[in-house]
Amino acid sequence: MSSAQTSGQHRRAPALRTSTVNVAIAGATGAVGQEFLRVLEQRDFPIGQFKLLASARSAGKRVSFKGAEHTIEELTDDSFKGVDLALFSAGGSTSKRFAPAAVDAGAVVVDNSSAFRMTQGVPLIVPEVNAEALSASGIAIGKGGVIANPNCSTIIMLVAVHPLRVAAGLRRVVVSTYQAASGAGAAAMRELEQQTRQVLAGEAPTCEVFSQQYALNLFSHDSAMQANGYNQEEMKMVDEARKIWGDPAARIAATCIRVPVMRAHAESITLELGRAMDEAEARQVLAAAPGVEVVDDREHNRFPTPLEASDRDAVLVGRIRQDISSEDGRGLAMFVCGDQIRKGAALNAVQIAELML
Amino acid sequence: MSSAQTSGQHRRAPALRTSTVNVAIAGATGAVGQEFLRVLEQRDFPIGQFKLLASARSAGKRVSFKGAEHTIEELTDDSFKGVDLALFSAGGSTSKRFAPAAVDAGAVVVDNSSAFRMTQGVPLIVPEVNAEALSASGIAIGKGGVIANPNCSTIIMLVAVHPLRVAAGLRRVVVSTYQAASGAGAAAMRELEQQTRQVLAGEAPTCEVFSQQYALNLFSHDSAMQANGYNQEEMKMVDEARKIWGDPAARIAATCIRVPVMRAHAESITLELGRAMDEAEARQVLAAAPGVEVVDDREHNRFPTPLEASDRDAVLVGRIRQDISSEDGRGLAMFVCGDQIRKGAALNAVQIAELML
Repeated sequence: MSSAQTSGQHRRAPALRTSTVNVAIAGATGAVGQEFLRVLEQRDFPIGQFKLLASARSAGKRVSFKGAEHTIEELTDDSFKGVDLALFSAGGSTSKRFAPAAVDAGAVVVDNSSAFRMTQGVPLIVPEVNAEALSASGIAIGKGGVIANPNCSTIIMLVAVHPLRVAAGLRRVVVSTYQAASGAGAAAMRELEQQTRQVLAGEAPTCEVFSQQYALNLFSHDSAMQANGYNQEEMKMVDEARKIWGDPAARIAATCIRVPVMRAHAESITLELGRAMDEAEARQVLAAAPGVEVVDDREHNRFPTPLEASDRDAVLVGRIRQDISSEDGRGLAMFVCGDQIRKGAALNAVQIAELML
Repeated sequence: MSSAQTSGQHRRAPALRTSTVNVAIAGATGAVGQEFLRVLEQRDFPIGQFKLLASARSAGKRVSFKGAEHTIEELTDDSFKGVDLALFSAGGSTSKRFAPAAVDAGAVVVDNSSAFRMTQGVPLIVPEVNAEALSASGIAIGKGGVIANPNCSTIIMLVAVHPLRVAAGLRRVVVSTYQAASGAGAAAMRELEQQTRQVLAGEAPTCEVFSQQYALNLFSHDSAMQANGYNQEEMKMVDEARKIWGDPAARIAATCIRVPVMRAHAESITLELGRAMDEAEARQVLAAAPGVEVVDDREHNRFPTPLEASDRDAVLVGRIRQDISSEDGRGLAMFVCGDQIRKGAALNAVQIAELML
């Protein structure tokens, strides 16, 4: 993955192309599905035939893409004839139900759900981190297979942490997240907005997506609690990072918290590196890293915020400094923001597809 | 400090009293000043004469307390005649300007600003943690002196961390905060509310207290950045904890973030203890600790939230679990919420005063 492909705003796919790709989007009406459309258009992905798929409920709706109108079709086992690339973002059960049909039809599935992430043989890819695992898998356009897109919090963490791991080795990660509503989908974003209006009006907030007030509040991630006291979201960050790095013993602990922000996640990350690294070197490593933009202006107190990260490709990294609780100079702290819908989901999936062009 | 004094909701001061105390509040119109009134009333603090002081701008305003109306007087050097206890919360410069006059008049000043916290000889007190430092100082009602109330984030952290430190020793703290608007005062709370209305209406947010959008956003704490890359708020947590524990080498690193929440702070805390401690023991230690309420219901996914902590005396502690990135079983993680205005400021100051009754 060259840095030209991943850094900067809305870069296009590589210019050299031998052919176009027939693309289907499964879950075209969701927050990530809609972002797939924007990302594919902005990056001028070489699309041949184009299919928008969703549940029967959404079938018949019309969506504009590159200036043309497209009609959403119902997702069925027969949807994938002639499809080269199927981008799935319709939840884990839809992926489990329909990805096999897509692969049988010869398509490469890039799946944004958690359905196949930990399945052996399914590459789990962050292009900036482990593009080589995709090549090694043998999956390519024309040779069907499933590729998994990692969890949004995992992607955002790894884009920032990986270059430091490459430069100095990594002994340990402690991360606390500040996660946006978009992580729970478009309905959660609407609920946050509705609740906020209600609370400001002195009314009781309507809790449908979440079981408690989200407006002007925050809470521990509501995914299922595991026996070790970590919730599923936290263990995704641990397990997926271990798989992506090919390091089943990687030491990572996460605390995942939902905050009343719309669409970009923030993460406070403390690292123990394999060797001492001062903040100047860390800044240099990060500034040169693909997919990273350093936003670390101490003089003007300007650091990454979810608002600034929204609608951006790059993961913003700032507050880069020594971990002063570390005794050996190997501790490093930083604060990171990334667009959950974009780099945390749709963009990463399209970048995976671009690796196969 | 007995647990009866600090745990539970709105407990009263000890029943045995020899006399009443003449109390002045400097900064009576601020968010913390108003909370002083509520806390003193709820705890039935044995007040003799009562003075409400503020800037000339607020002088003449009337405030009700224990069913009687009180008129706010202008704070001057002559305000403290006959005052036994002066609770200050009008900013650091006001404390520096007027605390000496109060002490000269024979009053004990409990100062909520940062003006004297790190001054040698000024006790910095969290009653649940270091009440003995107050006795050792010799400061008492009738013998004037200044006592400092720690920073809100420091107090909330220490109430939760201290019992574990006592039980097992403490090698290291890594903390990331989720700080409410109230930490920047009543004007910041109004700004968050106004901005939220504006953003929901599609208008540009008015940024007066903060230089950037706070509504549906979050940002690194805007206090002054220090040479080591930590901001003042973060270094307060480090330096104040070291002073309170009498351990100038205590290893603590903080990342302080403001989140769009009204009045309770949250903190994600990772500890390295002096010995291995399993989560059952940690929960037991915390359940028995003064000022702590364990809210850690994994089955119903109920953990501390700012909303639940608001208007509460206790610091809520949950998500108690092993730090799975720790190799030696000495790592412990937890998530903590405490009312910033109450235990983070007014309540802690009144509890300090109660120690002197």
